[in-house]
Amino acid sequence: MAEEKPPLTVVTCTAPVNIAVIKYWGKRDEDLILPINSSLSVTLHQDQLKTTTTAAISRDFKEDRLWLNGKEDDIGHPRLQSCLREMRRLARKRRGGNGSSSSSDPPPLSLACKVHMASENNFPTAAGLASSAAGYACLVYALAKLYGVEGELSEVARQGSGSACRSMFGGFVQWTMGERDDGKDSVAQQVAPETHWPELRVLILVVSAEKKPVGSTAGMQTSVETSRLLKHRAEAVVPERMAQMARHIQRCDFEAFAELTMKDSNQFHATCLDTFPPIFYLNDVSKQVISLVHRFNAHHGKTKVGYTFDAGPNAVLFALEDTVGELVEVIKRSFPPEDNGGPFLKGLPVQGASLSDELLTAVVRDPVPGVIQYLLHTKVRPGAPGVTDDNAESLPLLFTPG
Amino acid sequence: MAEEKPPLTVVTCTAPVNIAVIKYWGKRDEDLILPINSSLSVTLHQDQLKTTTTAAISRDFKEDRLWLNGKEDDIGHPRLQSCLREMRRLARKRRGGNGSSSSSDPPPLSLACKVHMASENNFPTAAGLASSAAGYACLVYALAKLYGVEGELSEVARQGSGSACRSMFGGFVQWTMGERDDGKDSVAQQVAPETHWPELRVLILVVSAEKKPVGSTAGMQTSVETSRLLKHRAEAVVPERMAQMARHIQRCDFEAFAELTMKDSNQFHATCLDTFPPIFYLNDVSKQVISLVHRFNAHHGKTKVGYTFDAGPNAVLFALEDTVGELVEVIKRSFPPEDNGGPFLKGLPVQGASLSDELLTAVVRDPVPGVIQYLLHTKVRPGAPGVTDDNAESLPLLFTPG
Repeated sequence: MAEEKPPLTVVTCTAPVNIAVIKYWGKRDEDLILPINSSLSVTLHQDQLKTTTTAAISRDFKEDRLWLNGKEDDIGHPRLQSCLREMRRLARKRRGGNGSSSSSDPPPLSLACKVHMASENNFPTAAGLASSAAGYACLVYALAKLYGVEGELSEVARQGSGSACRSMFGGFVQWTMGERDDGKDSVAQQVAPETHWPELRVLILVVSAEKKPVGSTAGMQTSVETSRLLKHRAEAVVPERMAQMARHIQRCDFEAFAELTMKDSNQFHATCLDTFPPIFYLNDVSKQVISLVHRFNAHHGKTKVGYTFDAGPNAVLFALEDTVGELVEVIKRSFPPEDNGGPFLKGLPVQGASLSDELLTAVVRDPVPGVIQYLLHTKVRPGAPGVTDDNAESLPLLFTPG
Repeated sequence: MAEEKPPLTVVTCTAPVNIAVIKYWGKRDEDLILPINSSLSVTLHQDQLKTTTTAAISRDFKEDRLWLNGKEDDIGHPRLQSCLREMRRLARKRRGGNGSSSSSDPPPLSLACKVHMASENNFPTAAGLASSAAGYACLVYALAKLYGVEGELSEVARQGSGSACRSMFGGFVQWTMGERDDGKDSVAQQVAPETHWPELRVLILVVSAEKKPVGSTAGMQTSVETSRLLKHRAEAVVPERMAQMARHIQRCDFEAFAELTMKDSNQFHATCLDTFPPIFYLNDVSKQVISLVHRFNAHHGKTKVGYTFDAGPNAVLFALEDTVGELVEVIKRSFPPEDNGGPFLKGLPVQGASLSDELLTAVVRDPVPGVIQYLLHTKVRPGAPGVTDDNAESLPLLFTPG
């Protein structure tokens, strides 16, 4: 085969964050990232929360390199290596190799080249906003485009970060835990597209952008080792909740959807507390938000808002479009904003609402100023991760020589 | 039978608080107060925490009356009525009646008389310090003395407040859940006397004397109705923990005792969080205490301190006598006392300790001043509730006419 100098090949992709309504917590295989239970999530719109990744291959690159949010990061991370290795294997396979690294054919040139990758979130990393899910989904998608790999990619994304597999689809997505030891059946699939339930809105209350005290990887490992309640949840509770949640979504039954979402969030945090030493992701502000939601629903005599919390204190609230105006006003009264240089409400516009005295008396108690940094109003995302056509989005760091 | 004017008969008793190390949460029978799982507790010394109850009968009393902490209270409370009815039934039975209210014999005069009762705690009521346990244990004990009833009383105390049955004994006490529908086998018994483990010390960190947001009666009822994890805990986890805990106590194995105590406290609070709507008894200060204990143990490379929390934010710490000095110093450094008009350390004296720089660096982080009101240092109580010989302890309110 004649030598040729391959062009610099660059692709820029974006991928969305997803928020689980049936939570994933605990692995049965640490290397392949196989979970102890299935999970179900809502993919959020990229206009508000997204990861952007630019990936490039070039003969001029001496080694694989990675930049995260503008700073070079460790390329040797085992999970990152898993994704790279797996994508290169799929690329070889697609080009007629057998996918095994023992193939005697010389590799195609793009596979002989090193890759540079740069990834950026438009939201705080590691604040419990599922940044690693969007990050690995984006990385895998970008590498697939670069190497021309098509087909099922959620299984590869899963090996970067478990929940990343769910960010490979828009709308409502379930990650089936699977049964096989090799993880081939532990993949994500769409339960319903975003168009199925266009009224659903998501309001993220950013309580703190601090790093969480116990990372979710270490946390869930300790939970699996020590929590009897987690084992019971995974074996006996989640299977029926998965079926219920899919049904509630298919029927657009908001009350049932929101109630089960709240219960499952609470149960996840309960298993964290049953871990030894115990793990706390909810703080006093999180609890105030929970109490507020229950008072709001009690006042209305129906479940109009649901909450869920991941591995951090930020609240993610679900509501239908026609509730958001009132809800935002109640939040503003309960957690009066303090000027921190930015707008309190970000994302989709919200229609103002006036609150009745009855509602104020019943729902707004002991306002706590300044504890919520801002609100992010968003909705369910359509479609899968995508290649961006906007060259301005391409991240420049890649082209650092080396 | 000739009429006679019975003398005013008065008795004053005291009863202790107990702290569960295997927690009771949830009833299978609300009226008889039959639990969904067995529990095990440590009875605390009365020198620091006790209830005093004076009870009197007189022909001059027109109706049964009750004073709690100096204020007249509702005598019609169903649980109070249960205890009164049951004690009078036992008194009739003892005097040759068949114990049934349909007996045709005229009742003895003391049973025809009304009773006045006054009860006082030397600690804040309803702050998660098991005041109702000591209160009902004391009431039942006083009525037994008044009516001359002997024998098994924990079954009666249980009908006032479940955990009260455990305050009927000193030392280490288990409450067997029982199987019978009538509750006759749901009684307390001593696992070991206090003399069995004289080095054990108890340090109570009073975080807040506020009333708890959800009372334990309502809380556990909601938990039974909604928490799948509580059901699993009661059925599958507690039975083996009861056996383990009794063994750890019998062997005076502090590390195992403290670790299981912490795990069971965490699991109880986990089931509260799995309740819908969720119940939170731990606050951010409770969590800081938990983290402190884990850092303290990690620094020493062994479990030298254990924590447990009831239905409130106050921490109860267990340690051996030789650890208390250092522990108290660490707590003072971590939660610097603010002058609130009283001493910071109450109860048993504590030997001062100097802390090494290594320990300070490893254990004391981000001190939070003023959040702990005071520390109460106590130990395990010997013996059962008792009649006090000290007339000065008799509560005067009884003699209010009427």
